[in-house]
Amino acid sequence: MTQQSPDPLLSPDRTPTLAGVERAAVKVAALLPQTPLLPLDVGGRTIWCKAECLQPVGAFKIRGAWHRLTDLTPDQAAAGVVGVSSGNHAQGVAWAAKRLGIKATIVMPSNAPQMKLAATRALGADVVLYDRVTESRDAVAANLLDERGGTLVHAYGDPWIIEGQGSMGIEARAQLTERGIAGPDKVVACCGGGGLSAGLALACPDAEIVAVEPEGWDDVTRSLAAGEILSVEDLAAPTECDALQTPQTWPINFAVLQARGVRGVVVTRDEVRHAMRVAFEKLHLVVEPGGAAALAAILAGKVEPGEATLVTLSGGNVEPQKYAEIIAG
Amino acid sequence: MTQQSPDPLLSPDRTPTLAGVERAAVKVAALLPQTPLLPLDVGGRTIWCKAECLQPVGAFKIRGAWHRLTDLTPDQAAAGVVGVSSGNHAQGVAWAAKRLGIKATIVMPSNAPQMKLAATRALGADVVLYDRVTESRDAVAANLLDERGGTLVHAYGDPWIIEGQGSMGIEARAQLTERGIAGPDKVVACCGGGGLSAGLALACPDAEIVAVEPEGWDDVTRSLAAGEILSVEDLAAPTECDALQTPQTWPINFAVLQARGVRGVVVTRDEVRHAMRVAFEKLHLVVEPGGAAALAAILAGKVEPGEATLVTLSGGNVEPQKYAEIIAG
Repeated sequence: MTQQSPDPLLSPDRTPTLAGVERAAVKVAALLPQTPLLPLDVGGRTIWCKAECLQPVGAFKIRGAWHRLTDLTPDQAAAGVVGVSSGNHAQGVAWAAKRLGIKATIVMPSNAPQMKLAATRALGADVVLYDRVTESRDAVAANLLDERGGTLVHAYGDPWIIEGQGSMGIEARAQLTERGIAGPDKVVACCGGGGLSAGLALACPDAEIVAVEPEGWDDVTRSLAAGEILSVEDLAAPTECDALQTPQTWPINFAVLQARGVRGVVVTRDEVRHAMRVAFEKLHLVVEPGGAAALAAILAGKVEPGEATLVTLSGGNVEPQKYAEIIAG
Repeated sequence: MTQQSPDPLLSPDRTPTLAGVERAAVKVAALLPQTPLLPLDVGGRTIWCKAECLQPVGAFKIRGAWHRLTDLTPDQAAAGVVGVSSGNHAQGVAWAAKRLGIKATIVMPSNAPQMKLAATRALGADVVLYDRVTESRDAVAANLLDERGGTLVHAYGDPWIIEGQGSMGIEARAQLTERGIAGPDKVVACCGGGGLSAGLALACPDAEIVAVEPEGWDDVTRSLAAGEILSVEDLAAPTECDALQTPQTWPINFAVLQARGVRGVVVTRDEVRHAMRVAFEKLHLVVEPGGAAALAAILAGKVEPGEATLVTLSGGNVEPQKYAEIIAG
């Protein structure tokens, strides 16, 4: 389906590396200003919140998409890309594709938030819907690639995506250094399939990494505890964290997470909602449920802050009615 | 009341200058990271939104307060400061005072948002309430200064405050330059008493400056049109823009605004609410009503964007219930 390049760096089966994260960080820095790293006092300790909801598509996903699409060969670029996403990766791929003049087809769940579907289409992508409960999104994507050709840009199971998301860690390290702070010594990341967590694990080799999932969608947490990849048991499990609804991590992610001794933590709906309210009141940021999971884990006392804790506020794409309901809570 | 310094730069009656704005910008840059300058597409044109709601106290007011308090003589600092504010300047002064170990007393309207009162007290300031309709806040402050001594830190009628707020313009100019953009050629600012507008007029000497007020509290707009300082006619006029409820600008502000040919524009409640929803959806920023007035003027077509338009998103301190009501709108 995808063209194989003779350059091992350009093989989709390659292993993501810190050097790759650093290369991605240079490309992202040339394209986008740094997102703010905002201090927040939690019980007398300062944690550092990376406001990725301020990215052009409202989420960090623009990082990996840009790194992947800018490394396509001219032939690959001409054939277009196929993305698979619950919404934020969709917008990241569509944004990068539009900017580079590449045709993008995105496989999205039919129950994705309307604003994410609309935003992806507004960026010029062709959206193909699937049913989250009865269909495998990876199978739908594979069929599309068979029919149309092109390169798969997976939402997390891809070395470029992992490296690209990791660029957030390089940026945060530089921002801490500017403030005279060494670190981070701890990284708490919102986790769906483990693309961001794996990228940050590569970017911050000396930090403890914690991957935070919403209850019901805790496959990475259970997989890391079990030492093998496990799937979400109930694909109809309710959650407000649509951005983190991934049924299973991929070996490329799991290998990085396991090698670094990453642990998973699970947060409840109410813990996430509380974190959204704190981000509203203290930081004046609109954070979507899936983007508030990491902060929720700290505020709930499930993760103890370190000396210099990096927390991802991964995205801010939430429907106004839903947000109003949560904030007024 | 205030001690007079022999240094003309340190006299409270001095005229604010571009050199003073630049000096303030250096001091602010040493203290606080830049706030993001976020692009927003408005009918095919890009405007540049300065996200001052991300400042530590949730508003730009920290700039002027820091510039003023760091220029106090040791004797002045020991005697403490008295601020007058509807809430955001209060927090700015309280924040700077706490950081510098200076005692702060703040005169605030009794109907200020509870979160602004609570946040000011939480920063260690002594809050003295007054009635917005029946009492003059300046008279209340003058009485306090007679009783307690100390230095008045007015919310807008003060050369340091004007220069400090203007540091936002120096920062924005540098951020535009980094993106290879000359400008700004137009600056659209939320306007209460005219501290920010005057500061930006000094900071951006080549730009057209527009001061935006909420309906009912349009004294600066009417004053600029009349060529003399006029007051708000109905001090009980309802508005959601509590941050912009100033009864009258001061000569020090008016002189700068008039000399630069600044014009005023008035926005309605619904225009402000729409701007808050756009900031929510497109920028993922929580902006309070008074902080959204400038954006409202552009979105309502009352101000035409220029080639490089700077728009102030001045603050984000809004009660959750009120915000939810507006966003769900």
